[in-house]
Amino acid sequence: MRCVTRAAYRKSENLHESSRKEMSENMSENMRKVFVVNGPNLGRLGVRQPDVYGKQDFQALRESCREWGRQLNLNVEVLQSDDEAETIGIMHKAADEKIPVVLNPAAFTHYSYALSDAAHMVSDAGVPLMEVHISNPAARESFRKHSVISPVATGTIAGLGFYGYRLALQAVAHILEK
Amino acid sequence: MRCVTRAAYRKSENLHESSRKEMSENMSENMRKVFVVNGPNLGRLGVRQPDVYGKQDFQALRESCREWGRQLNLNVEVLQSDDEAETIGIMHKAADEKIPVVLNPAAFTHYSYALSDAAHMVSDAGVPLMEVHISNPAARESFRKHSVISPVATGTIAGLGFYGYRLALQAVAHILEK
Repeated sequence: MRCVTRAAYRKSENLHESSRKEMSENMSENMRKVFVVNGPNLGRLGVRQPDVYGKQDFQALRESCREWGRQLNLNVEVLQSDDEAETIGIMHKAADEKIPVVLNPAAFTHYSYALSDAAHMVSDAGVPLMEVHISNPAARESFRKHSVISPVATGTIAGLGFYGYRLALQAVAHILEK
Repeated sequence: MRCVTRAAYRKSENLHESSRKEMSENMSENMRKVFVVNGPNLGRLGVRQPDVYGKQDFQALRESCREWGRQLNLNVEVLQSDDEAETIGIMHKAADEKIPVVLNPAAFTHYSYALSDAAHMVSDAGVPLMEVHISNPAARESFRKHSVISPVATGTIAGLGFYGYRLALQAVAHILEK
């Protein structure tokens, strides 16, 4: 069971501090759980390229997503990791437990076939997987124009800042209602 | 003024029947006007590949967009054309009159640099231009993976069926409120 031990180690080491807090909180059991998963460097929101990603920090994103979730009757768990393996692990959990995902894969968008395969398992499990980008990747460096996540996502929302997460959560709620 | 005459000819010849009706209707002047512009073959919704684009027709899309607009206090004018020049002309009008645009460029997405340049003028005019796709182009043929519109769009929403237009209109309303 060595891999489980290593995965647990990664989890505690790499998850953003507020993600650990998030996991330890009791959430309403009446609301459908949704993961909002943020890839590498998104824990540095507000510090990293604020002209591209805005001045608000990750904590502000987390609080906004939780509030939007409450409005939509969704129990939103906001996670962030710089670690590919850990992010894959979150997808496995989402697939196994049929938890819809809003995923901002950050730089993994453009090269992580491993995360793409993992994300595919979520949509294959019959729950929505929404890809979100704060910026408009198509308007930036050429390597950002290609996404290995989009082909396996239910849908993609890009270029709308934090508000894109709001629309992605709304899309999840809409799909779950159908 | 030959080109103007030809443009007017194109307009009456190529605009989808319901688009002509749309243009002739009196709309509330208290609401901000928004164009919802649909590219080639989208007048055939409900008939063309319903497994990809759904069973609802263009008229249903038009009515949904207008209703969503009313909910958002937007005066939504839904247009459709198979003609590139005409679609470019609509972008020019939007840029000149600062009318936000929700654009489903359909197949033009993947090759029309002329429409891309025209769409750029809309976002350059300081109003949002939202790119929308009913299907998830990234999950289809390889030629659909590249968009020449995305780099000049404010944002992109894909894969959510007609509901993507709802979210795009909401994004327009959100941006106008800021």
